[in-house]
Amino acid sequence: MKTLILTKGDVLDLISMKLVIKEVEVAFIELAAGTAKMPAKSYVSLEKGDFRAMPAALSGASGIKWVNVHPANWQINLPTVMAVLIYSDPETGCPLAIMDAGEITAYRTGAASAIASRCLANPGADSLGLIGAGRQAHTQLQAHMELFNLKHIRIYDIDNDRAQAFVQSYPGLPVSSGSIEEVCDSAIICTTTPATKPIVRLDWIKKGTHINAIGADAPGKQELETEILKNARLVVDDIEQASKSGEINVPIKQGHISPDTITATLGDCITGRARCRLNENDITVFDSTGIAIEDIAVARAIYNMAISKNRKKYLEVDFLS
Amino acid sequence: MKTLILTKGDVLDLISMKLVIKEVEVAFIELAAGTAKMPAKSYVSLEKGDFRAMPAALSGASGIKWVNVHPANWQINLPTVMAVLIYSDPETGCPLAIMDAGEITAYRTGAASAIASRCLANPGADSLGLIGAGRQAHTQLQAHMELFNLKHIRIYDIDNDRAQAFVQSYPGLPVSSGSIEEVCDSAIICTTTPATKPIVRLDWIKKGTHINAIGADAPGKQELETEILKNARLVVDDIEQASKSGEINVPIKQGHISPDTITATLGDCITGRARCRLNENDITVFDSTGIAIEDIAVARAIYNMAISKNRKKYLEVDFLS
Repeated sequence: MKTLILTKGDVLDLISMKLVIKEVEVAFIELAAGTAKMPAKSYVSLEKGDFRAMPAALSGASGIKWVNVHPANWQINLPTVMAVLIYSDPETGCPLAIMDAGEITAYRTGAASAIASRCLANPGADSLGLIGAGRQAHTQLQAHMELFNLKHIRIYDIDNDRAQAFVQSYPGLPVSSGSIEEVCDSAIICTTTPATKPIVRLDWIKKGTHINAIGADAPGKQELETEILKNARLVVDDIEQASKSGEINVPIKQGHISPDTITATLGDCITGRARCRLNENDITVFDSTGIAIEDIAVARAIYNMAISKNRKKYLEVDFLS
Repeated sequence: MKTLILTKGDVLDLISMKLVIKEVEVAFIELAAGTAKMPAKSYVSLEKGDFRAMPAALSGASGIKWVNVHPANWQINLPTVMAVLIYSDPETGCPLAIMDAGEITAYRTGAASAIASRCLANPGADSLGLIGAGRQAHTQLQAHMELFNLKHIRIYDIDNDRAQAFVQSYPGLPVSSGSIEEVCDSAIICTTTPATKPIVRLDWIKKGTHINAIGADAPGKQELETEILKNARLVVDDIEQASKSGEINVPIKQGHISPDTITATLGDCITGRARCRLNENDITVFDSTGIAIEDIAVARAIYNMAISKNRKKYLEVDFLS
């Protein structure tokens, strides 16, 4: 029994945003069809951070992502988030590969947003607003570049230097920085901050805007004013997870909105089971918590490419030896 | 960031039953003291088997075991159960080691039983009955050898050849095979079968016997007649997990016993918070489902030995490279 070991560099050699968008879309279709298996994410909370265990199975694929969030890691030059994914054969249980899943997480999060934007934004949307200029902002931009013809990209970060650095890293693109209000004047907005108090106000949001709310991924986090959620058509990746730990978790806990407010899941939007945007004036929100099927679908593609391309290039371990 | 890769052979070089008994005992003490963190085990059920995700944290240690059960694997010469454990630094989230956890699982299961037997069996218990002659029977025997002076060891398996093979693998020990009734005539009994219908009857059990019920580890499994549970002082490793997937799960579901029947957890027995055996005639049962803190405690000891002994001996991977 051989297990492939894939480092971040190995994954980066194999991954592309085009591929990830395709795989994430398939994962949501499988989830909507009921052929995916995904128990609830479980959390281990510690003094300096937490871990999340994210197991799932799709057709021909199974595995688990084990990912931490340690906010003070920057002080010791370590990433806040590190993820390891065990990719297993559902037929035998064998661990086929163990791979770094930091890039997989960032790519699939961008891909899910861009897929949601394609379903929910108004046709011809050509401006993107990014709130937060961290790791996730890059893959939000890259994924939207795959699916949209962007004429204006604006970015805001509480740390202006970070926003400037982001702008400078895309010299060939129409990217500029701006105030949070200016950034909100976009057809599509992506919020990727660790905010625990709402930072985006309803009166900054034009009619017809689509918002991907990414940052809130644990109880107590919220980026959008509750009034936005009350006035929007609301789509989630997973109803249970969004209600517990997504953008809507705080307003639900406070009794300001109910889980019945959710219009549909992303899978239902993709498959056309649900009609999410009713008219061009609707504000739409995709509450993205990040779900295990996305990771496992991407891992399946990475593994299949690794073994079909040049298997000998990668380290292999026989754990049973 | 370097992650140590430890194969089964590496783990076997470092592990010993004496060590594992010590670590498992500490884990149960931490659990009883409330300093351990352990969300519920989650299951991914597939056509040919299932996976269990078992995350936990103890003082200075955290991680997750990802383990499958694929009953038909013997047909293709693969183990039914394979386990991979990611051992992480709770301070930073870094994956410190990835190790095969098949041996860890078998050793810690044996250790938990022997610890339960020390707490619950009558003083001077010197006979051990093993029902089921698979992998787990060996570590049940080895663990009890550490803590008891055994004069009679009897084994039964539905497949008599397997029982004979077990006997022959311990030429220096007083081991013999017998009928299931004969094996039940022991001061301590360990059941390690995959039975889904009870195979041990109350009228075979003498007063004062202690039983470690190991086999039932998923909904629908049961090895002991419900009458035994009704007439016994009942100790569990984890109340929630035992009620859902342990020896008591079927009788609870059928309404024959209630979770209130549970006398105590093993942690409460070890720390003396609960008095479990009241007199020498009590039948006592330890319902062992196997919990993540046991695995993480043993992984902590294995990792610490690996890095302090001869770190260079082991493969290291920089997943972030």
